[in-house]
Amino acid sequence: MAEERIRVNPDKLKSLAARELQAVGVPEEGAKITAEVLVTADLRGVETHGIISLVPFYITWIKEGRITPKPDIKITDSDAAVATADGGNGLGYVVTHRAMKKAIELAQKTGAGFVAVRNSTHFGPAFYYAMMALEHDMIGVALTNSPVPEVVAPGSPLVAVGTNPLSVAAPSNKKYPFVLDMATSVVASGKYRKAIVEGKSVPEGWAIDREGKPMTDPNQRSLDNGGTLPLGGTPDLGVYKGFGLGVAVDIFTALLTGSVPEIFQKEKGTSHFVGAFNIKSFIQVDTFKNLMDGMIEGYDALPKFPGIKNIYIAGGLEAKIQEDREANGIPLWPKVIETLKETANELGVEFDLL
Amino acid sequence: MAEERIRVNPDKLKSLAARELQAVGVPEEGAKITAEVLVTADLRGVETHGIISLVPFYITWIKEGRITPKPDIKITDSDAAVATADGGNGLGYVVTHRAMKKAIELAQKTGAGFVAVRNSTHFGPAFYYAMMALEHDMIGVALTNSPVPEVVAPGSPLVAVGTNPLSVAAPSNKKYPFVLDMATSVVASGKYRKAIVEGKSVPEGWAIDREGKPMTDPNQRSLDNGGTLPLGGTPDLGVYKGFGLGVAVDIFTALLTGSVPEIFQKEKGTSHFVGAFNIKSFIQVDTFKNLMDGMIEGYDALPKFPGIKNIYIAGGLEAKIQEDREANGIPLWPKVIETLKETANELGVEFDLL
Repeated sequence: MAEERIRVNPDKLKSLAARELQAVGVPEEGAKITAEVLVTADLRGVETHGIISLVPFYITWIKEGRITPKPDIKITDSDAAVATADGGNGLGYVVTHRAMKKAIELAQKTGAGFVAVRNSTHFGPAFYYAMMALEHDMIGVALTNSPVPEVVAPGSPLVAVGTNPLSVAAPSNKKYPFVLDMATSVVASGKYRKAIVEGKSVPEGWAIDREGKPMTDPNQRSLDNGGTLPLGGTPDLGVYKGFGLGVAVDIFTALLTGSVPEIFQKEKGTSHFVGAFNIKSFIQVDTFKNLMDGMIEGYDALPKFPGIKNIYIAGGLEAKIQEDREANGIPLWPKVIETLKETANELGVEFDLL
Repeated sequence: MAEERIRVNPDKLKSLAARELQAVGVPEEGAKITAEVLVTADLRGVETHGIISLVPFYITWIKEGRITPKPDIKITDSDAAVATADGGNGLGYVVTHRAMKKAIELAQKTGAGFVAVRNSTHFGPAFYYAMMALEHDMIGVALTNSPVPEVVAPGSPLVAVGTNPLSVAAPSNKKYPFVLDMATSVVASGKYRKAIVEGKSVPEGWAIDREGKPMTDPNQRSLDNGGTLPLGGTPDLGVYKGFGLGVAVDIFTALLTGSVPEIFQKEKGTSHFVGAFNIKSFIQVDTFKNLMDGMIEGYDALPKFPGIKNIYIAGGLEAKIQEDREANGIPLWPKVIETLKETANELGVEFDLL
């Protein structure tokens, strides 16, 4: 990619994304939520889960009938600290946003609140939902299984579990919040797409082929030719841990909602699990947040290897990127802007990004 | 070790351990709980957390005044789904056992219950507390930070975070329960002790020295010479994930109890976090357990690489070991039995293991 990226205004990008989603039938509220989540991913530098996915994933899937644009979303109270949700096969963004609001309400009443979501679709970046807890002085968590398995079980050449990400977010006082968002595999699929676009091979340790040998050509991946390794990679380096975390995510998402575990799943829907822990039910909020600040300062004050400028805990680098992008705009590749423009023209909505 | 291990009766081993703990001042209930947890670790093949630690760790620490044998344990209700606990610097086993019982009670009332524990000490194998949820048809979780940092932050040559294990347990129907228990680092310290005893080097990827080079001599580890790597190991293979999980555990344990985060910790006490999710608040218990069975069968039916007999999810291998050891006894090294015998003699309690 010899071209330079072009900075665009985040608010204009949100409005454009929402207009395009509305044009394919998504109601205004859901369109705005989805646009907000996508653009927040770009603001924080998580581009694999940003606006780049809008047209090829969500607009396309709605057009193809794989996602219901106006779903019948149900959220049902089932216990003082628990609710369950049915996404009606709509955008995972919309039902999960509602589910996390519900979890926060429950945590306000009981100290902790959880919502398990079934019959949903891809919900984008897990961190967004976990971060919704921050302004309420809560710790947020968000888990999701994956629409298709991409990760091998240790000992088998076939994909059997999803990349199954988990996110945890916790507020600080003067410093950035802790925001962990990680696939439970060595890498998530966005990294292969990036390597394919850039014509590069991928590092040994990401994936194996059906003989168990390292697979470094990202184009070799297929459902019956090995797959991505669980975090840890090898028995010596703790592959059972990544695999265990992936299965644990499937337990909290698929199994706790009565859905199909990934081992049997062939695009049979996606399930999520979100939760909030009310900090003040455990300890004074100020004490907690000041300890967070101190911890963040402590890590950054560590001695560093040559070439290392800062030691951030999770979320620190993203907060720095967000500061820059909120002030100076989100840098997008011309090809991404072109796709958004073509789609706007095709759907008959205004394009005002440039 | 040319000697053979000797099988001992699990119940006799529990009684002996409890007698020795009582002889150094631990009240009967706490001594029995601690013995039960230690021997369960041996029954499940988790020997690093088994009876081998009784004398060199707990008996010694109590004698040295580092652990209070008769602690003032307080558990305080703080919200409908939350309680907090103070371990009174007693055995981590005793306060955490009570805390998990409390979390289960809370989950019976609200659907989910959590207890954060401060002012505690080493609690042994995390899985035991998570597994306490199983007989109540709940999913259990248990986290702990570490008394001392052993794990480097990515970019730094100094240890800054603990091995900070996490455990998740979920019940099945006819199959074994899912029981994940993992350090958030590549390995926990027991693996180095094992290598030292066996006179072996450790694999590249476990630890780095203060120059950032692989440290394969287990005797080289010290507080100012590098340390264990977070799970993932390198930036390419996801080291930020293991580091992020380690910090997340510190947030739920140290910070949520107002204790000192590990970055500043020099043996300043240990904190834990336990929780239970009541399955019936989410879904019918039978549906969940049958899905668990199906998932376990699905993994084991996967095609396998040559030499792989079974594909277990977490807890499967341990359940198989437990079946054997409950029937045939726990195999202990003669040296371990000798230490137990010497300690029994020294403390004036009956030794009836052989």
